[in-house]
Amino acid sequence: MPRIVKSTIINAPTDRVWSVLRDFNGHDRWHPAVATSAIERGYSSDKIGCVRRFRLADGGELREQLLALSDLEQTFSYCLLDTPIPLFNYVAHVRLLPVTDGDRTFWHWESLFTTKPEDRDRITHMVAEDIYQAGFEAIRRHLKEAA
Amino acid sequence: MPRIVKSTIINAPTDRVWSVLRDFNGHDRWHPAVATSAIERGYSSDKIGCVRRFRLADGGELREQLLALSDLEQTFSYCLLDTPIPLFNYVAHVRLLPVTDGDRTFWHWESLFTTKPEDRDRITHMVAEDIYQAGFEAIRRHLKEAA
Amino acid sequence: MPRIVKSTIINAPTDRVWSVLRDFNGHDRWHPAVATSAIERGYSSDKIGCVRRFRLADGGELREQLLALSDLEQTFSYCLLDTPIPLFNYVAHVRLLPVTDGDRTFWHWESLFTTKPEDRDRITHMVAEDIYQAGFEAIRRHLKEAA
Amino acid sequence: MPRIVKSTIINAPTDRVWSVLRDFNGHDRWHPAVATSAIERGYSSDKIGCVRRFRLADGGELREQLLALSDLEQTFSYCLLDTPIPLFNYVAHVRLLPVTDGDRTFWHWESLFTTKPEDRDRITHMVAEDIYQAGFEAIRRHLKEAA
Repeated sequence: MPRIVKSTIINAPTDRVWSVLRDFNGHDRWHPAVATSAIERGYSSDKIGCVRRFRLADGGELREQLLALSDLEQTFSYCLLDTPIPLFNYVAHVRLLPVTDGDRTFWHWESLFTTKPEDRDRITHMVAEDIYQAGFEAIRRHLKEAA
Repeated sequence: MPRIVKSTIINAPTDRVWSVLRDFNGHDRWHPAVATSAIERGYSSDKIGCVRRFRLADGGELREQLLALSDLEQTFSYCLLDTPIPLFNYVAHVRLLPVTDGDRTFWHWESLFTTKPEDRDRITHMVAEDIYQAGFEAIRRHLKEAA
Repeated sequence: MPRIVKSTIINAPTDRVWSVLRDFNGHDRWHPAVATSAIERGYSSDKIGCVRRFRLADGGELREQLLALSDLEQTFSYCLLDTPIPLFNYVAHVRLLPVTDGDRTFWHWESLFTTKPEDRDRITHMVAEDIYQAGFEAIRRHLKEAA
Repeated sequence: MPRIVKSTIINAPTDRVWSVLRDFNGHDRWHPAVATSAIERGYSSDKIGCVRRFRLADGGELREQLLALSDLEQTFSYCLLDTPIPLFNYVAHVRLLPVTDGDRTFWHWESLFTTKPEDRDRITHMVAEDIYQAGFEAIRRHLKEAA
């Protein structure tokens, strides 16, 4: 079962990074892979169990469900329900921790999933680089623009 | 800073106990100390940040806010906003873990709070016994009646 | 990657169960599958990195290394170095939590490993039942005899 | 009960930082506050329960005990047994997490303790700055010299 762990340091306090990341319906405002985002059934985006529907920049669509959210710990978890690519049983966890030295943010993004052996390298690279690492860079730009 | 830790074993699978406990607006259906419960502003009871208002069996009122909820880990956290008793900075955590041997549930209920030195023993006893231990017994009865 | 999670309730305080379990060189005194146990190089059995060598009741031998031990959390972790059976990358975690209601112990035993597809069911059953569940029962007997 | 949390980023992989930090008897080689260090009874410095005796740069002496150590999680915990200053019930936790972006290290150092109200500000400042923050800077220099 592939496990992806990516982490970075963002040059902003955790409260500022969390205010962007905690919005389960806000990835279209900063992640380059996401064209539009909507929450099904009109639920609030911080209701546990709500489902977001992404249209991707490449035209694909996917649905993900919020499994956990903690303002106390600055963490959230979600899973993939439907996807156009061979990525199964995908559960991801995001957490922020303060770097007190410099008032910065440690951002940890981790997932477990299954896929077919022949797709493993391609899918792992795509999630690690096009989703996670590209997301890190996008948040850096987003916070700079918002500043 | 007093810390209360209480735990018990419930003779039912975690999914069954979790289906009762995860409802942040459902304590009036099983906890003897709670007469009525309502969520403010019409929010869903699994929206992070929602506030519940309890009228207690003794006539008092209190407000508590949902800080975290995880269907994945079967945990939730909440804090006290307003209360008629000298109990401050109260943050509580509930988590369930499966006891595979017998398909039972380990239920852990923990909190940290501050109070005045002269109230410490009385408040600690009240939370540990009248809220937590009484809650354990009440869930046991509730699940038996529902069965 | 198979994951095994087994847990039980022991009718004794955590300190009493921990005093038996924390001895990485003591399984031959209570686990029916273990005939003899020795720590290599004369190291103490609570030195992180120490290696124990088991001769099993069936005549096989295996070596396991202590990776973590916490008297504070009542947890330890270990991995398998050499084994006569097709069980690879095996890392296991043991932790105790108090059940305050009755002064009992919640004991959680978990592992991740890899094996060959054709051995998966057999190995999973063996670890779950012959090692973990049999270990639970053995500790129950051991504590009763010692009492 | 004062709680101190300090964290920093070290520009080196976690394995390199851990190889220095995991030695419970090695602080005299890098921390400016520590003049000499010795483990009592000739125990190994990674035996859980071992006690280190520091002579401080200011001439004071203290004894600390190893409570937990995990090479798997790159964490350790320790408590203070004897100290010349009014710092009681001190338990500290160190953990490292990888920052994959740049192959760096997130280092978290946390403690809980009690003290007399009149000493609280002074002791808190001393631990946070003279022990933790000074320790961060010292490891940076130590790794640079060793490179």
